Amino acid sequence: MTYCVAMRLRAGLLFASDTRTNAGVDHIASFRKMYQFQIPHQREIVVLAAGNLATTQSVMSLMNQRLSGDGEHLLNVPSLYDAAVLLGRTLKEVVGRDSDAGQGVDYGANFLLGGQIKGEGPRLFHVYPQGNFIEATEDTPYFQIGESKYGKPIIDRVLRYDSTPLDEAAKCTLVSFDSTIQSNLSVGLPIDMVMLRANQFEQAMKPPHRIERDDPYFLALRKGWSAGLRKVFDELPNEPWFDA
Amino acid sequence: MTYCVAMRLRAGLLFASDTRTNAGVDHIASFRKMYQFQIPHQREIVVLAAGNLATTQSVMSLMNQRLSGDGEHLLNVPSLYDAAVLLGRTLKEVVGRDSDAGQGVDYGANFLLGGQIKGEGPRLFHVYPQGNFIEATEDTPYFQIGESKYGKPIIDRVLRYDSTPLDEAAKCTLVSFDSTIQSNLSVGLPIDMVMLRANQFEQAMKPPHRIERDDPYFLALRKGWSAGLRKVFDELPNEPWFDA
Repeated sequence: MTYCVAMRLRAGLLFASDTRTNAGVDHIASFRKMYQFQIPHQREIVVLAAGNLATTQSVMSLMNQRLSGDGEHLLNVPSLYDAAVLLGRTLKEVVGRDSDAGQGVDYGANFLLGGQIKGEGPRLFHVYPQGNFIEATEDTPYFQIGESKYGKPIIDRVLRYDSTPLDEAAKCTLVSFDSTIQSNLSVGLPIDMVMLRANQFEQAMKPPHRIERDDPYFLALRKGWSAGLRKVFDELPNEPWFDA
Repeated sequence: MTYCVAMRLRAGLLFASDTRTNAGVDHIASFRKMYQFQIPHQREIVVLAAGNLATTQSVMSLMNQRLSGDGEHLLNVPSLYDAAVLLGRTLKEVVGRDSDAGQGVDYGANFLLGGQIKGEGPRLFHVYPQGNFIEATEDTPYFQIGESKYGKPIIDRVLRYDSTPLDEAAKCTLVSFDSTIQSNLSVGLPIDMVMLRANQFEQAMKPPHRIERDDPYFLALRKGWSAGLRKVFDELPNEPWFDA
């Protein structure tokens, strides 16, 4: 499986994805699940992918290949909404092409697409396997795809559109990844992260920040979070029912 | 949905289930998902159910109805293993009877069955929708059914077969329920809990301990856990990458 999360806050956007892909436990490999499309000072788009690897790779290959063509592509669509429409259409195209082989395989994939195109604010979309999509709002400022449930409670507790700064969002994201990795073998390090500050257009071709297995900050965060949780847990009173 | 968890520790067994059943958001109701079978000082068996409500109720009705018959039932099977076989067989019987109506409905159900029969130690089984089952071991001292992922990380962090006392297990269980309830509308209070101390056979016909919406302990636990988490989170350092 996979775990990807993207957040759209007043301060900007944050994207993170793990890199583990598996088909059965003896078939574990690392693949990037994060793709960036940029025109310096004009547009920054990040796509995260989860689901059938053949589908997600094919969709992203087509998206890339078409950047140099005459048609609509991620570097010329007029809005991020149109980028989501394009991604959804390409997904349907690939699934339609491949799925006639049948054989009970799930060809589906989910995508998170977000970023900013000059002239509009930062936006974030979740593109469903059916090719339709929803957009993040101030009430629901984040989306997850893949193994999303283990790491959801901490995000629900912490994240607020108006008041959460990006550095706190990054910390929250990594704690969310830690909870997921602790409980689910199919999600693993390294983690790729990209942050886009609102209206800055400064990411310009920088690679994602990669958090490796021995990243000292992540190791310290894991240890601090685990010890802190344990301390809070130990200090909470026991069920009085049990003393009866 | 539903959330049920059962733990088998050196100290004994702990069972907990929520009571919310839903079929679509406008069809939410409370049903008990916990069933007890006891012979004072001889055997204590607890069953938790998740899945299709028609299936789980029918399985438990048959299990109850047959207690007064001549055949095998939960009050005369010689071991807890045989109780799991019986539950699995009854589940297959009900699904076989009902599922010929088809209509794309999921008739499946999962059960947790645990307890102690005099002559053997406490045991715990997870009965799958197919009627087969697995047994909890010292390495895997707990099972969850229903909406299990949100509340799994805290159990993985805290629970140890040898060293976790039952009161701590109960606290851990309620924190796990709190995380689930925070992130998933389909799981709700009240929560039913039963504890069976190893080799005590003292539960004898006591109803489960019910934690209602306004239970002062649970409210304090929620508040303490939430504030504690937030404090630990705030004290963790931010990603140094962001300062660059």
